[in-house]
Amino acid sequence: YEVPEQQWAQVIEKSGGPPVYKQIPVAKPAADEVLVNIKYSGVCHTDLHAMKGDWPLDRKLPLVGGHEGAGVVVARGELVKDVELGDRVGVKWLNGSCLACSFCEQADEPLCADAQLSGYTVDGTFQQYCIAKAAHVARIPKDVALDAIAPVLCAGITVYKGLKESGIRPGQSVAIVGAGGGLGSLAQQYAKAMGLRIISIDGGEEKRAMCEQLGSDAYVDFLASKDVVADVRAATEDGLGPHAVLLLAVSEKPFQQAAEYVRSRGVVVAIGLPAGAYLRAPVFQSVVRMITIKGSYVGNRRDTAEAIEFFRRGLIKAPFKTVPLSDLAKVYELMEQGKIAGRYVLDLSK
Amino acid sequence: YEVPEQQWAQVIEKSGGPPVYKQIPVAKPAADEVLVNIKYSGVCHTDLHAMKGDWPLDRKLPLVGGHEGAGVVVARGELVKDVELGDRVGVKWLNGSCLACSFCEQADEPLCADAQLSGYTVDGTFQQYCIAKAAHVARIPKDVALDAIAPVLCAGITVYKGLKESGIRPGQSVAIVGAGGGLGSLAQQYAKAMGLRIISIDGGEEKRAMCEQLGSDAYVDFLASKDVVADVRAATEDGLGPHAVLLLAVSEKPFQQAAEYVRSRGVVVAIGLPAGAYLRAPVFQSVVRMITIKGSYVGNRRDTAEAIEFFRRGLIKAPFKTVPLSDLAKVYELMEQGKIAGRYVLDLSK
Amino acid sequence: YEVPEQQWAQVIEKSGGPPVYKQIPVAKPAADEVLVNIKYSGVCHTDLHAMKGDWPLDRKLPLVGGHEGAGVVVARGELVKDVELGDRVGVKWLNGSCLACSFCEQADEPLCADAQLSGYTVDGTFQQYCIAKAAHVARIPKDVALDAIAPVLCAGITVYKGLKESGIRPGQSVAIVGAGGGLGSLAQQYAKAMGLRIISIDGGEEKRAMCEQLGSDAYVDFLASKDVVADVRAATEDGLGPHAVLLLAVSEKPFQQAAEYVRSRGVVVAIGLPAGAYLRAPVFQSVVRMITIKGSYVGNRRDTAEAIEFFRRGLIKAPFKTVPLSDLAKVYELMEQGKIAGRYVLDLSK
Amino acid sequence: YEVPEQQWAQVIEKSGGPPVYKQIPVAKPAADEVLVNIKYSGVCHTDLHAMKGDWPLDRKLPLVGGHEGAGVVVARGELVKDVELGDRVGVKWLNGSCLACSFCEQADEPLCADAQLSGYTVDGTFQQYCIAKAAHVARIPKDVALDAIAPVLCAGITVYKGLKESGIRPGQSVAIVGAGGGLGSLAQQYAKAMGLRIISIDGGEEKRAMCEQLGSDAYVDFLASKDVVADVRAATEDGLGPHAVLLLAVSEKPFQQAAEYVRSRGVVVAIGLPAGAYLRAPVFQSVVRMITIKGSYVGNRRDTAEAIEFFRRGLIKAPFKTVPLSDLAKVYELMEQGKIAGRYVLDLSK
Ligand SMILES: [Zn+2]
Ligand SMILES: [Zn+2]
Ligand SMILES: [Zn+2]
Ligand SMILES: [Zn+2]
Ligand SMILES: [Zn+2]
Ligand SMILES: [Zn+2]
Ligand SMILES: [Zn+2]
Ligand SMILES: [Zn+2]
Repeated sequence: YEVPEQQWAQVIEKSGGPPVYKQIPVAKPAADEVLVNIKYSGVCHTDLHAMKGDWPLDRKLPLVGGHEGAGVVVARGELVKDVELGDRVGVKWLNGSCLACSFCEQADEPLCADAQLSGYTVDGTFQQYCIAKAAHVARIPKDVALDAIAPVLCAGITVYKGLKESGIRPGQSVAIVGAGGGLGSLAQQYAKAMGLRIISIDGGEEKRAMCEQLGSDAYVDFLASKDVVADVRAATEDGLGPHAVLLLAVSEKPFQQAAEYVRSRGVVVAIGLPAGAYLRAPVFQSVVRMITIKGSYVGNRRDTAEAIEFFRRGLIKAPFKTVPLSDLAKVYELMEQGKIAGRYVLDLSK
Repeated sequence: YEVPEQQWAQVIEKSGGPPVYKQIPVAKPAADEVLVNIKYSGVCHTDLHAMKGDWPLDRKLPLVGGHEGAGVVVARGELVKDVELGDRVGVKWLNGSCLACSFCEQADEPLCADAQLSGYTVDGTFQQYCIAKAAHVARIPKDVALDAIAPVLCAGITVYKGLKESGIRPGQSVAIVGAGGGLGSLAQQYAKAMGLRIISIDGGEEKRAMCEQLGSDAYVDFLASKDVVADVRAATEDGLGPHAVLLLAVSEKPFQQAAEYVRSRGVVVAIGLPAGAYLRAPVFQSVVRMITIKGSYVGNRRDTAEAIEFFRRGLIKAPFKTVPLSDLAKVYELMEQGKIAGRYVLDLSK
Repeated sequence: YEVPEQQWAQVIEKSGGPPVYKQIPVAKPAADEVLVNIKYSGVCHTDLHAMKGDWPLDRKLPLVGGHEGAGVVVARGELVKDVELGDRVGVKWLNGSCLACSFCEQADEPLCADAQLSGYTVDGTFQQYCIAKAAHVARIPKDVALDAIAPVLCAGITVYKGLKESGIRPGQSVAIVGAGGGLGSLAQQYAKAMGLRIISIDGGEEKRAMCEQLGSDAYVDFLASKDVVADVRAATEDGLGPHAVLLLAVSEKPFQQAAEYVRSRGVVVAIGLPAGAYLRAPVFQSVVRMITIKGSYVGNRRDTAEAIEFFRRGLIKAPFKTVPLSDLAKVYELMEQGKIAGRYVLDLSK
Repeated sequence: YEVPEQQWAQVIEKSGGPPVYKQIPVAKPAADEVLVNIKYSGVCHTDLHAMKGDWPLDRKLPLVGGHEGAGVVVARGELVKDVELGDRVGVKWLNGSCLACSFCEQADEPLCADAQLSGYTVDGTFQQYCIAKAAHVARIPKDVALDAIAPVLCAGITVYKGLKESGIRPGQSVAIVGAGGGLGSLAQQYAKAMGLRIISIDGGEEKRAMCEQLGSDAYVDFLASKDVVADVRAATEDGLGPHAVLLLAVSEKPFQQAAEYVRSRGVVVAIGLPAGAYLRAPVFQSVVRMITIKGSYVGNRRDTAEAIEFFRRGLIKAPFKTVPLSDLAKVYELMEQGKIAGRYVLDLSK
């Protein structure tokens, strides 16, 4: 593979942005790294947080954002054996980890204190040639389109991990709060593929139509419902409430409701990283009902492979729009205005 | 066995008490019940709540309190086969359950909607002859003293269950918040018997001495510490914090600290039923560290048998003072004044 | 409900049979029992074993066989609260258990030493009025046909339990040995409903067609294959073999093959009770590949409710033929000749 | 650190041996490797198999054996960050693995198809300077003696892993078959540290004395017992048999006995790699009692760290004799004659 010296990239030069579209040098992979020619990259709310710097987590500056990149390996370090030049791979939020600490040892790489985060602590996928640790790139099967898989590499893996963490079993019921959004649409599809019964919770008739089309067994409209807790419970086969709740956008009221309507012995999984929000639940009820509340972050490498395999089998569809890399700033604007349904995917060949 | 018509009991006749020491009739067991001649009964904070009626949970009135009774079976219903007359048994908080609902089916009898609670929804162990469901009485081995086991039937089972619910494995570290109290002393002994390393958290030098004597690997004095979170973490072998935290008296500040010092992927278990208290934790840290927060109620029948077996093997000591049944009101007074260390056990033969 | 004094039944009067079609008295339920007016009952290979007496397990004689009965509760003992007269229920292999031993306490009622077995240690469902323990009858929802559910009460629950015991997760691959038989057809449907990928193993093109129609992802014909182990492995997405194997008819050769083609860390589940057969596997490979071999018996009450719920949702079809109770001997003949595809269901109203 | 060009080593030059004591060149670490100055190395039966070549697993020739080495890091590749020069580390059976396959991804490095095995597929610890993958060396705490820890690096980890794989919980009973041998003595100590009750099984009064001293709760002498199955069951608190069985030297008779006396729902774990042996169990009993049979290989990196931590806390003692590296051939002779009790440790400074 011929690798150029210079490439196009979107660079955040100061906190708050905007991203600057410019040419920068192409990096060289270290012994355990690969260089990936990114073909497509999804754009995610996290990228907006990285630009703004409003999370309690330090990031690199200047920074090339992006953590949902799909492309082809064009160079590799001398230790790399499992990945070949020409392999199709994904670069995701977890760019690398130490592979030797007590968390990595138990397959919890996302908890590694030395984890590198794409588009956050290391340069990410809003550039044509991106570096990643060979042991961490996601393998993309031949029969999977690189543009379509891009958003799955972040949102898909995250909701799949959340469902796994809930400990729910096939045939049981999961309530998905925020089911009509981008994460919610993926969560519904993964839940269905996992044999779960789905109670979708969101607001409005448009969301209802979308959830029903995706195969939800019930829909609770929190805008129309007079008693969300009662309605969610009533939607389960025995009225005892769902076995698990997936909270895709944690804020206080939905969280407290979830702790109320979840079945005794049930699990409420919090996903998503709102700055400054708090979980809150009454002790008495949590104890006598033996409720579990759990935070779920991104998936590990095994979760990633599994989430991609569900996609490969045709069980997951993530609607997206493709725009050139140069349009990133416009995508951020739409995102800030809350005008995005589905995902934007950047085409890096243009 | 000769069973009298009348017996001595302590009866709460109106909400708020006090208990009235008087003679009442002896009940007859239904087909699936046993009548237990209570020899000793522990007195627990829960009995005080039952008298006051300050929990969000209805109770019977007039009420014979008590749920830590140890005695001998003197009569049984015609369906009872596993329990013989003369068997030594314990009557605990969970007096009975339906044994057929979806929770009972999965061995979660404490979550049964039709559970009967001794000394709360049915008459308890502050009487000489107490009714209990045969399938629910605890089996007390021959080599176990009835007065010494009484407090274990509530406090012991509860802390043992909490340790089990934490999912912690032998060799890992548990922080026990409130280690120097009655529950805490039992929790330390169970933790030790389970092969756990113990970080005790409490206030003052007297508590320190007590915890060290019980075999704590470390003691953090929250009154003296300038940084409880740092000190607890430093007490673990790798500085990453304990794998689990047992919160024996949940209130907001210790809870938030626990969520901070617990190891990533760790579990915070809340035990105890303070009226009106709340769990509260920041979403961002809970998610990226994948923290689990869990309420743990009382044990089921299997937990009960296991907790008693640890006691039988001599691994658990629960200091107690014995007073006659007629002295219950005095015990409540001392309890309200916070003047009780260890447990009071009522002798019902006097 | 009016209950007659006499009823029609099929009675095994001596070991080896045949069953005698005759009138016998209707029994009365004890305090914790119900009397069920059986409408339909499936006929199972186990019934043949019960008649012949060739299992290492004692049975009652004379005996009314049958353990897949669906009907309506017409009388109940005075302790029964959860089951109402008129409720639709199933009487299954596990007629009752003590609900108090250490196995019952952990929801392993099938392992109870005092378990009563329908049509084996107590009279079963080949009679119009059958006794069962109230806590053990299966609840049959209103929208489920009593004839169609009958075979699910034994075969369906058994294969569902086997799949649960394997510990397999949605998206993983299960090999089903004997996929084209009656158990196999149910196993495929449950596996599919649980989000599993299915490799069916059986012999012949007819079985292939049937498995493909049921949604198998791959079919391996052990009659045609030159290397079953290689072919099964090749049928998994990464060539490493299935995560679990369900052996529906354990004999030595298929068992050894299963231990070879199952993925490292995988689980081989043995179902079915051939008299005199042995499991056999090489130690070296079992150890270095960390293989698990597991026996799975019938489901507990929770498994039963879950298996029925999958059926209620329309995800399971079990083809059956209906004949009158008086034809039981003929059904046994066909069974002995191996001429039965699908299940025979007896109509007890005729 | 000054590293010489040449070093002393024991080299197997042809299958069958004997090992040749000679000088060979010191290797240089690759980018992800460390060079360890081995101070002590245990000698294990596996080393004898490696010399003889009687396992169904290919090995390197000529070969430096040994896989229980403890020493100090004296050089490292440029990618190595977590291990410092001067760090005390252990080189164990698993010298390295790919860290990227589906097994490594789930922390099952011992199942990696590209695993390197010390003293088997790569040169091991019977040389003064040994190469190992940095991510795989065991960390040895400062307060642990290098000679004493050496045997723990293989035997200790293996039995600890077996106990973990059994799924047994503190307070439950484990039967250890071969409790009086080297592995058995370690297994008893780990079991005790994990809060388990121990039934030791071995032959003779000398073994009994040794087991009782190590804290076994019961000892069954298979030479003296008239009914091993009955005696093992009788040694459990309720007569139902142990929850788990650890088979330290699998052969057919003890295996079949274990499948008989293990508690229903119990787990029989096979450890050890006899060439040509088979597991064998009756299907009927395995199914109706829901027995699990499991092969357990060596521990992963997390198991290793945990096993060492138990040792560091002073809970594990492994008796050993120290001899110079030059004496290896004599140690093999004693081993072949079955004359070794405890472990031989080679001192490589001599
Ligand atoms: Zn993202
Ligand atoms: Zn790490
Ligand atoms: Zn209490
Ligand atoms: Zn219940
Ligand atoms: Zn059957
Ligand atoms: Zn039982
Ligand atoms: Zn070894
Ligand atoms: Zn690997």
